[in-house]
Amino acid sequence: MEEETRVLKTLFIKERLLYDGNQIHSHWALRNYAILGDSIVAFIGPCDVKREEMVDLEDILKGEVIRAKEMLHFICEHFGVSLKEIVFNQRLLVVCAKEVLEKRGISLFRVGNDLFYEGRKLSVSIATLSPISGKIHLGINIDPEGAPVPAVGLMEMGIDPIIFAQEVMENYSKELVGIGEAMCKVKGVP
Amino acid sequence: MEEETRVLKTLFIKERLLYDGNQIHSHWALRNYAILGDSIVAFIGPCDVKREEMVDLEDILKGEVIRAKEMLHFICEHFGVSLKEIVFNQRLLVVCAKEVLEKRGISLFRVGNDLFYEGRKLSVSIATLSPISGKIHLGINIDPEGAPVPAVGLMEMGIDPIIFAQEVMENYSKELVGIGEAMCKVKGVP
Amino acid sequence: MEEETRVLKTLFIKERLLYDGNQIHSHWALRNYAILGDSIVAFIGPCDVKREEMVDLEDILKGEVIRAKEMLHFICEHFGVSLKEIVFNQRLLVVCAKEVLEKRGISLFRVGNDLFYEGRKLSVSIATLSPISGKIHLGINIDPEGAPVPAVGLMEMGIDPIIFAQEVMENYSKELVGIGEAMCKVKGVP
Amino acid sequence: MEEETRVLKTLFIKERLLYDGNQIHSHWALRNYAILGDSIVAFIGPCDVKREEMVDLEDILKGEVIRAKEMLHFICEHFGVSLKEIVFNQRLLVVCAKEVLEKRGISLFRVGNDLFYEGRKLSVSIATLSPISGKIHLGINIDPEGAPVPAVGLMEMGIDPIIFAQEVMENYSKELVGIGEAMCKVKGVP
Amino acid sequence: MEEETRVLKTLFIKERLLYDGNQIHSHWALRNYAILGDSIVAFIGPCDVKREEMVDLEDILKGEVIRAKEMLHFICEHFGVSLKEIVFNQRLLVVCAKEVLEKRGISLFRVGNDLFYEGRKLSVSIATLSPISGKIHLGINIDPEGAPVPAVGLMEMGIDPIIFAQEVMENYSKELVGIGEAMCKVKGVP
Amino acid sequence: MEEETRVLKTLFIKERLLYDGNQIHSHWALRNYAILGDSIVAFIGPCDVKREEMVDLEDILKGEVIRAKEMLHFICEHFGVSLKEIVFNQRLLVVCAKEVLEKRGISLFRVGNDLFYEGRKLSVSIATLSPISGKIHLGINIDPEGAPVPAVGLMEMGIDPIIFAQEVMENYSKELVGIGEAMCKVKGVP
Repeated sequence: MEEETRVLKTLFIKERLLYDGNQIHSHWALRNYAILGDSIVAFIGPCDVKREEMVDLEDILKGEVIRAKEMLHFICEHFGVSLKEIVFNQRLLVVCAKEVLEKRGISLFRVGNDLFYEGRKLSVSIATLSPISGKIHLGINIDPEGAPVPAVGLMEMGIDPIIFAQEVMENYSKELVGIGEAMCKVKGVP
Repeated sequence: MEEETRVLKTLFIKERLLYDGNQIHSHWALRNYAILGDSIVAFIGPCDVKREEMVDLEDILKGEVIRAKEMLHFICEHFGVSLKEIVFNQRLLVVCAKEVLEKRGISLFRVGNDLFYEGRKLSVSIATLSPISGKIHLGINIDPEGAPVPAVGLMEMGIDPIIFAQEVMENYSKELVGIGEAMCKVKGVP
Repeated sequence: MEEETRVLKTLFIKERLLYDGNQIHSHWALRNYAILGDSIVAFIGPCDVKREEMVDLEDILKGEVIRAKEMLHFICEHFGVSLKEIVFNQRLLVVCAKEVLEKRGISLFRVGNDLFYEGRKLSVSIATLSPISGKIHLGINIDPEGAPVPAVGLMEMGIDPIIFAQEVMENYSKELVGIGEAMCKVKGVP
Repeated sequence: MEEETRVLKTLFIKERLLYDGNQIHSHWALRNYAILGDSIVAFIGPCDVKREEMVDLEDILKGEVIRAKEMLHFICEHFGVSLKEIVFNQRLLVVCAKEVLEKRGISLFRVGNDLFYEGRKLSVSIATLSPISGKIHLGINIDPEGAPVPAVGLMEMGIDPIIFAQEVMENYSKELVGIGEAMCKVKGVP
Repeated sequence: MEEETRVLKTLFIKERLLYDGNQIHSHWALRNYAILGDSIVAFIGPCDVKREEMVDLEDILKGEVIRAKEMLHFICEHFGVSLKEIVFNQRLLVVCAKEVLEKRGISLFRVGNDLFYEGRKLSVSIATLSPISGKIHLGINIDPEGAPVPAVGLMEMGIDPIIFAQEVMENYSKELVGIGEAMCKVKGVP
Repeated sequence: MEEETRVLKTLFIKERLLYDGNQIHSHWALRNYAILGDSIVAFIGPCDVKREEMVDLEDILKGEVIRAKEMLHFICEHFGVSLKEIVFNQRLLVVCAKEVLEKRGISLFRVGNDLFYEGRKLSVSIATLSPISGKIHLGINIDPEGAPVPAVGLMEMGIDPIIFAQEVMENYSKELVGIGEAMCKVKGVP
């Protein structure tokens, strides 16, 4: 008898990739890595989001840039979810990343989907809907050079981004399994 | 990288059990067999549904009985589904059972959720909602004695109910995996 | 007092039409045949899906073609449904088509949404979402010439595609009425 | 080709009935009048809701009574709807009743689900969920005697409750058909 | 302790604006007026909907024009709603507008989402979905010149459109608060 | 123009109350504290959940007890949510509590919905559905005496439970506002 109720596919891509915003489109993991179904994929590379790929209208209206010399990127896709659900997933992914760093003795401060370390920004994140799926991008600075605000990166903290990435993906996956199990064991109440 | 997007738990219970209708309650599989999550469970035994456990109001209003000397019973539970979705699941489960018999050269006629063989009734089925989950009962006659209408059973057809049960559960499980995959590979259209 | 809870509109189009994939767009039946609401429309004609109209990403990535000299095409539209629901509808439509052929003594083998006859492929099918509706295409070969795999058609089976089409549409319509009724007659369970 | 996408069943019950609150339970129309599916049923009779059948917690906490000597009662049941949807349906039913009286030259004032005539209360209404369906009760005073607040009834207005009831049910039915059609004719926007 | 469960943002724009259909796109209020969240915005100006911005396919197929010399326009946006919910919202907005005029002694006749005064058309309205939100446009003629059908406007009725607009927005806002409260105070029923 | 899209009502009850499990029923806050709508309520008192009020079937099957001499209790109610959504809310509430302690220099370890301090359990939590709403109980030990596992409490940590409670409720409220805003500012993607 199987033990897991739902399995998230995880992949760490070894080659360096520029995050330019196209990875937030639906089926990016299927089109490029033959991953069918809900997934979280991580890779390392610079961040320079093209104007036309920005999805946060507040950022667009303020003319902000989303840029860093080197980042660890997570791309999640969950099929058949609502916008509310993908935003909840995004919060939990950010919390997972924060808690993996806490285990290494690094104290972070979270404001919504943003992580801060000693007053400097560590991450960027967005969640949105495609016609078929919900998508999340979470970028954690490795080398924050080029960021438009005071920022910090994993390099300065002495964190190996690859081991960190694996642990975040594993914990996020367990988090979702746990949520599924929590839904299956409770009685309703009057 | 994992290959399955969603795994249905399957169990064949070896001991004989009376189906009296309480098995349609939520968490029956968790309370009795420690199965947490979506599941299909099969067992063999008589069918005699207590009046207060009947869930089909048309049957109740007509004063019908749901009874047979020996049946193969399938109990499905799917968490977090709507009534419509559990009724769709029920249709597919009935179709799976029908097709497993077809592979053995037995031609059946389906009307909604009822299967007929040479004009006699082979099965009973109901789908409903608990506060937490959707539930399905599908009973396939082995020995239809006591049924309130002309009926037929697997015994007369020379079908081994245990092997049959395993194959139905496996095919139903694959059907659901296939549905999940079909949802994850299509582009939206304008 | 009215008897039907929900009525699917059905139409058989007498003129021959090429299925090139644009029929999977939303409101095709409204724009061309003034059909407002949920519908199933059938017509006969060749199948040659334009690259840019293909919606199955696995097919696109493999460079597959969707082609046959003559097919019976069914186009379904259901408004306000989820991707999961339209995929369920698709399975039931395929099952309806299979069962109408079974009644004529033709044994088919179903794998997901594909029908096979003596090891050869009889059908193609896709289900997807538009911004406003769910859409299904089911194509049943009449003359499979040009198909990229070993295939079979209704012509070889001696089936009249028009009578067959009418019966499939009628049975699918009844199937949906039956599903609606199944949802309205059950008591909830604890 | 059928013209209606969804048909609400309507029934006027000629015998007088006490509304005591049990009619708000699911399947009341099926159990008593063999109506399967979404429905609106009307009847005339006194109103005296039993304490244990009251569903408005604000009323219960304030110790209010729901009572009138003679009322026209509407009981709606919609299967598979959310609480929000049944509350929307309730508003539209109240608006339909108001507009049928307006056509007869009677000006009413609506506050949420309550109708007032010259400062006196004409109606009571509640909407809630059963495990399987959404339910609405709308009671329009005919003779308001016994009501706990200043009230008015159709008798004083010179309105025939039976003709009025038929027209309300017909208009509510058209309203729902119109809503269904409005959903099927629009293009999505960027 | 806060008293409101959900607050709709309201804005009356003082400058005159042409309604050409682009205002029905998502985030129009955020992009132009920095309004984040559910909102209703009103403004005054001519109406001349560009062909490519029309969303009612029945209008498009009939070649109709949507035009008037001067209108009071309401633009609503509700995030995370279904097409059905936005159509319900549209009906209630139209009813709110009608009732505000009734309070000024003006009797209107409503057919679906259209308002009529002495047989002439007072309003146009459409509701649709963007990928992220539901949108409503309700246009009430001030000066109906140029309308393709016999029409009437607020000017002829002697109604001040600005005061009227404020009252409609306020009542619509209260209507939604009332619906939210109605959902939070009822007990479920068996 | 209003600034908040959705407001959660918060209340700290000054009198001590036993948490015996009945507070997880729907409308507890409305019935006892006249709070209509989504809410989070906190109070201090012992924890001793009656067998028949336990909702975690795994706990019930293992014969576990849920008990502590003194706890800070949070009771949340969210109307119109799914089981999945209330479980997501529960995770975020637990994370909020954890982060308020982190700000005071206390490092915790989270496993699903459980918080641990130096290997000892700090909290219990459950989320479930009533017919009308989703409900959460989060209990944070003040004095863990009587707990069935090694446990720790706020008293030992030197945390003032009242100030802590206020900050958790405030942060949870902001978290939900932030989630609502995140849903309203993003463009969809292809």
